[in-house]
Amino acid sequence: MNWTGSIDYHLLEIFPFFSHQLFLATVAADDAPAILNGVLLSLIVIYLASKIGAEVAKYFEQPSVLGELVAGAIVGISALHLVVFPDSGFAGSSSVIIQFLQLITNLDPTTLDRVFAAQSEVISVLAELGVIILLFEIGLESDLRQLKQVGSQAIVVACAGVAVPFALGTGGLMLLFNVPAIPAIFAGAALTATSIGITSKVLAELGRLQSTEGQIIIGAAIIDDILGIIVLAVVASLAKTGSIDVMSVIYLIISATVFLVGSILIAGFFNQSFVTIVDRLKTRGNIVIPAIIFAFIMAFLANAIHLEAILGAFTAGLVLDETDARNELDELIKPIADLFVPIFFVTVGARADLGVLNPAIESNRAGLLIAIFLVLVAIVGKLITGWVVFGQPGINRMAIGVGMVPRGEVGLVFAGIGSASGIIDKPLESAIIIMVIITTLMAPPFLRLAFGKSDEPPTAATEATID
Amino acid sequence: MNWTGSIDYHLLEIFPFFSHQLFLATVAADDAPAILNGVLLSLIVIYLASKIGAEVAKYFEQPSVLGELVAGAIVGISALHLVVFPDSGFAGSSSVIIQFLQLITNLDPTTLDRVFAAQSEVISVLAELGVIILLFEIGLESDLRQLKQVGSQAIVVACAGVAVPFALGTGGLMLLFNVPAIPAIFAGAALTATSIGITSKVLAELGRLQSTEGQIIIGAAIIDDILGIIVLAVVASLAKTGSIDVMSVIYLIISATVFLVGSILIAGFFNQSFVTIVDRLKTRGNIVIPAIIFAFIMAFLANAIHLEAILGAFTAGLVLDETDARNELDELIKPIADLFVPIFFVTVGARADLGVLNPAIESNRAGLLIAIFLVLVAIVGKLITGWVVFGQPGINRMAIGVGMVPRGEVGLVFAGIGSASGIIDKPLESAIIIMVIITTLMAPPFLRLAFGKSDEPPTAATEATID
Repeated sequence: MNWTGSIDYHLLEIFPFFSHQLFLATVAADDAPAILNGVLLSLIVIYLASKIGAEVAKYFEQPSVLGELVAGAIVGISALHLVVFPDSGFAGSSSVIIQFLQLITNLDPTTLDRVFAAQSEVISVLAELGVIILLFEIGLESDLRQLKQVGSQAIVVACAGVAVPFALGTGGLMLLFNVPAIPAIFAGAALTATSIGITSKVLAELGRLQSTEGQIIIGAAIIDDILGIIVLAVVASLAKTGSIDVMSVIYLIISATVFLVGSILIAGFFNQSFVTIVDRLKTRGNIVIPAIIFAFIMAFLANAIHLEAILGAFTAGLVLDETDARNELDELIKPIADLFVPIFFVTVGARADLGVLNPAIESNRAGLLIAIFLVLVAIVGKLITGWVVFGQPGINRMAIGVGMVPRGEVGLVFAGIGSASGIIDKPLESAIIIMVIITTLMAPPFLRLAFGKSDEPPTAATEATID
Repeated sequence: MNWTGSIDYHLLEIFPFFSHQLFLATVAADDAPAILNGVLLSLIVIYLASKIGAEVAKYFEQPSVLGELVAGAIVGISALHLVVFPDSGFAGSSSVIIQFLQLITNLDPTTLDRVFAAQSEVISVLAELGVIILLFEIGLESDLRQLKQVGSQAIVVACAGVAVPFALGTGGLMLLFNVPAIPAIFAGAALTATSIGITSKVLAELGRLQSTEGQIIIGAAIIDDILGIIVLAVVASLAKTGSIDVMSVIYLIISATVFLVGSILIAGFFNQSFVTIVDRLKTRGNIVIPAIIFAFIMAFLANAIHLEAILGAFTAGLVLDETDARNELDELIKPIADLFVPIFFVTVGARADLGVLNPAIESNRAGLLIAIFLVLVAIVGKLITGWVVFGQPGINRMAIGVGMVPRGEVGLVFAGIGSASGIIDKPLESAIIIMVIITTLMAPPFLRLAFGKSDEPPTAATEATID
């Protein structure tokens, strides 16, 4: 509320009765209008960037997440300085939005820095809620039954697609680039997860969702997502304890497994009670609020047992996907995800300083070499997975390998978390983002090439599954 | 992210290369996991309270907003101390959620207060975004064409329903209770607005939406909403400049009118361009993101020209209600409003210290007397409006009067804003909330009484309009 903080002090003389309370309100709420203005302006910039980025990406037949990321890099510290954060070492005066606020409201420098800090805090929490809601939605889209159908091939592809890029990436970074163990493991982990969203959308656009190759890719991508989250939890907890402790790795794998499997086992019971509760509720938000409460409780619990908030949110989605309220919930979560998730992708892009990849600056060349190395490992490590498929003589192994190449959400989560915690440095973070951008960019055209001339032309039914 | 802040300092020895960056991240992100945990726990409490409150209210055939408000008072400073704010003069140690966080994460007292401040900041901004989205949705539900049909009777009822309670309330508070002018005007203004949501829902439940009385009530409630927002803007700006300045009142009425009428006049043009833009967008969120960008821009502009963010959001809703994307937008905004709006109502309830209305404490008796006075004025001031209707000889004047009685969203907005800015003191704020609760509570049974035995039984068509 614009005016809450700007009550003139002569009000104190007019209403002595209220002076104490007014003083408290003035102290506490002085920055409130500027903070709300800053948040509104930041969200306007973030949403404009995300929509323009997504539409430009769509125009070039690329996934919209790619456009949001690039648009974030454009409005962020790499270029326009509209969306910047204090934890990158920036002062309030370096934010164009804060400069604009100062222009229209005449803030003094101290207030300006406080407003900058508070506004950044709010946007950061909104971005964190964004990734929690994203993983909740990915959980809702993942399907245990689909997983069982594609069976053992999908599991083998997923495991190879996690192990090979992780081993090649981590080993290569340590041996070739002398990167310390934990950032190398972090970067290696960022190479593991296939983007279920991007892959399934591309397959649908090519009309190949129902092919054997398509089924294996989707199944493997789903398992990959879960493995990627476990790897993320393991790596994150490694970073937390500060050293590689085998017992804590085992503890984490067990607690991640117990948490995931336990949640899925109680899903059958929970299915009934969730539907019973939802059916009894008669007021607005009868489905979406209980679902969000469940997601936030699971996110908090996962955090409390030293896993990740996003793992809890993903599991909550997986559990609710088993309930009869699934289809309705899918529809209701979409606009909420549309509102929250872009904040995450745009701020991840905005935090990435692409300037460190400028080859004209000598100190950047190591980062560029790392980026080239990561891209190669990312492609080779996933292409190989096509050749581990067994018992399918005539299968298009190249198509499966290419289908596993696009990284996405989880890769970016690694980059964002690694950077926010200071585990990975800027060149390595930017190299990971470049890797995600390139693997995501190359997937659609190369997947089309790998499938060759269509022996199974797209039908209306498969086209309709395009999101 | 739970672990971002808890990187041990011995990491600095292991990775000297990262030490500077790690130090920055540690300083900046030290509280981040605790803040996210605090926000998650606060949202879980707020959503549980809102849902339980809404369902209990529904069980007693009362509007759900009433239940959310009462539930907020229960989890707030009046009782459970789960949702408390530093601007009420509370320290972090008085928040049960912060105490719980300390129990599981061992925060030191300084960190605890910082986490409490930051978490409260985030929840406050979410509540402000909640009221912005609420007024955007009310704008979407309001309909200029419906307004024109019910015509002059609705305008007369609305104007009388604003003028009489405002004059009686403000005058009475100043003359009988010696309340200073600005808080008296604030409380008087809080008496003006009829709740369009509550009134239309009650009429639908009684099957009286299509009756002449129903049409007049709905039309008057819509005009009332707009008048209430203009009154709010005027009163808010009066509070801002600190004195009653006729020129600034005229400026505000003109700028409010120009802003509203100007926005509505360009709606015809905007209708076309908004639909053209939405039709061209091919990525997810193609309707909801442009609509939210428009609402946030209008909210920011209204703020910038010294009106209210909520007036901008309401106008944005009114304009978009004229577009062809209306119905789809209505559906998409619902889950978003379901998620954001309860944060506003629950925190309004949580901030209200109902303890000041305890008659056992002598200093409270003035506040209780004010509450009784406000309730009487609120009822009498609206009942009168039934008798200003002209040219409708056989009309049920009592029903129209009773239909205008329920206050709601806008009344609570006044209470929340007045309290946050320190313009009104706690007894007056609580008196306003008691007034809103009682007028809202009495509407459904008394409206049923006023309509008497149904001469026009509810039909399936009118029942279907129940939200």
